[in-house]
Amino acid sequence: MRVLIIGAAGMIGRKLTARLADGTPLGKPVEHLTLVDVVAPSSPPGFPAAELRTADLSKPGAATGLLDGRPDLIFHLAAIVSGEAEADFEKGYRVNLDGTRNLFEAIRQQSGYCPRVVFTSSVAVFGAPFPAAIGDEFHTTPLTSYGTQKAIGELLLADYSRRGFLDGVGVRLPTICIRPGLPNKAASGFFSGILREPLAGQEAVLPVSEDVRHWFASPRAAIGMVLHAATLDSGPLGWRRTLSMPGLSATVGDQIEALRRVAGEKAVRLIRREPDPAIQAIVGGWAQNFDASRATSLGFTAETSFDQIIQAHIEDELGGRIPVSA
Amino acid sequence: MRVLIIGAAGMIGRKLTARLADGTPLGKPVEHLTLVDVVAPSSPPGFPAAELRTADLSKPGAATGLLDGRPDLIFHLAAIVSGEAEADFEKGYRVNLDGTRNLFEAIRQQSGYCPRVVFTSSVAVFGAPFPAAIGDEFHTTPLTSYGTQKAIGELLLADYSRRGFLDGVGVRLPTICIRPGLPNKAASGFFSGILREPLAGQEAVLPVSEDVRHWFASPRAAIGMVLHAATLDSGPLGWRRTLSMPGLSATVGDQIEALRRVAGEKAVRLIRREPDPAIQAIVGGWAQNFDASRATSLGFTAETSFDQIIQAHIEDELGGRIPVSA
Repeated sequence: MRVLIIGAAGMIGRKLTARLADGTPLGKPVEHLTLVDVVAPSSPPGFPAAELRTADLSKPGAATGLLDGRPDLIFHLAAIVSGEAEADFEKGYRVNLDGTRNLFEAIRQQSGYCPRVVFTSSVAVFGAPFPAAIGDEFHTTPLTSYGTQKAIGELLLADYSRRGFLDGVGVRLPTICIRPGLPNKAASGFFSGILREPLAGQEAVLPVSEDVRHWFASPRAAIGMVLHAATLDSGPLGWRRTLSMPGLSATVGDQIEALRRVAGEKAVRLIRREPDPAIQAIVGGWAQNFDASRATSLGFTAETSFDQIIQAHIEDELGGRIPVSA
Repeated sequence: MRVLIIGAAGMIGRKLTARLADGTPLGKPVEHLTLVDVVAPSSPPGFPAAELRTADLSKPGAATGLLDGRPDLIFHLAAIVSGEAEADFEKGYRVNLDGTRNLFEAIRQQSGYCPRVVFTSSVAVFGAPFPAAIGDEFHTTPLTSYGTQKAIGELLLADYSRRGFLDGVGVRLPTICIRPGLPNKAASGFFSGILREPLAGQEAVLPVSEDVRHWFASPRAAIGMVLHAATLDSGPLGWRRTLSMPGLSATVGDQIEALRRVAGEKAVRLIRREPDPAIQAIVGGWAQNFDASRATSLGFTAETSFDQIIQAHIEDELGGRIPVSA
């Protein structure tokens, strides 16, 4: 099967590529893999013949060239993140909306072609006030431009699917935790930082109170969701093509207790409380809990405890051992 | 106050213009009125100095020129209808999505400017399956390209409002009944036709069964909704800027009984039953009932019986008398 990954240089893109090299998670061998991003993606181990492309979908015509090989499966992961889309209004709409629409349009203009398109959306399509658990029929009223652009992408995905131009499946990913790599300035950064840094023997700052609740899945679970979206029978979806993914509803306190169980008190002591009312206010508007019945019934899965999320990080990022406890 | 009506040549646009000429429904006098459509709007009685413009918002730059006078209030009513947007995919996206986005962008690019923008959306943003009554938090999963384009317009309206570029209020209008004018080929046409034609002494065809239920408001009520959206305090809306409008949930049987009460058996006998399974199937996917609590609490109103809807037609379109009973 021929696979195209757009946004291949990002965290999900790199992990997805690595996973595709490890067995046949799509059920069929990947005969041709094209990796695309605005910066050159790196050549992945396991795919010596992967085609590496640099392209900006928001540029007219850029998407068309990516379809030359008629990929059977397209992962559309490319987006600028929430903070950047909020800071740069025009860039957010150009990359996240025009880029997505240009891709769907380029697919539509190929005759006799209807690839599976997996679109990564986000819980940012929802905006407070929320019910106790956000169900599958709750409306999308985003409170960021990023969330707006993702909600529009979902609508386009459904309409282009209904019209037979593509076979789209959208996944609204939970907040990914523990995000590997360096600390960043995103308002959500501390959710990963308060676990990742202590597990590496480093100090971390906690800017909110321990009762803050949010919706999580590990990077490993997110890759599982994206792969399941690539292979499931889209018939039962009807034209409601985007699904809220399962996840774990947990408080910061739950995170800390799991860290204590997995890595001990010494790790927990590396978390320094430094309340930041601005971050507390932002995070207070985020989704806390979902009833993801529809996705669950279709076979999507996520972790059910923060211990599992931490364990996945130790296995996937730390080579199976915790430096701090050494 | 300075008012701009885009889509002024359509049914709502013409009735809105006429209503603006009749007293001060906006609470303040209209000092300047600009009427815009893709075809030249006609000069309205009551506004001898109205500025008549021809413009296609989907053309780059066309929207900017309409903002020269810095209107305080913009009615954005322009759209191609459901059937046309379904038949011509590209035109639908060009007019209904690009046109709307171009308008909002042109407004954003004016510095120090934040006009009230009233956007007419539609119950077509919803797609079956439905709950018994569609509440204010039900998700938008349109089953037409038109509904998709309107749902995207709602998202843009909210985001541009949140960012402070405009002060948007969206109204999801019920199916307008009795729509004046000639019969048309729209799947929904019979809802008006089975009343309008008999009231005018003409035969009408009923292609569906009498238990078909749908959501209605008169043209007069729709104008009232659009005017209320123009003047209400948008603060209580937060960033949920589009509201499902109140309406009347009624069956075809209810319509016929009301016709009998208002115009007598002779009128009812002019309805000829000619079942059309294709139309029955289309109409079966449409919204039947709403719980429009939010709009109602904000002062939006509609008719509560089909007798009132028929009476509004007799008063507004037939000069107060029913030809058939003559």
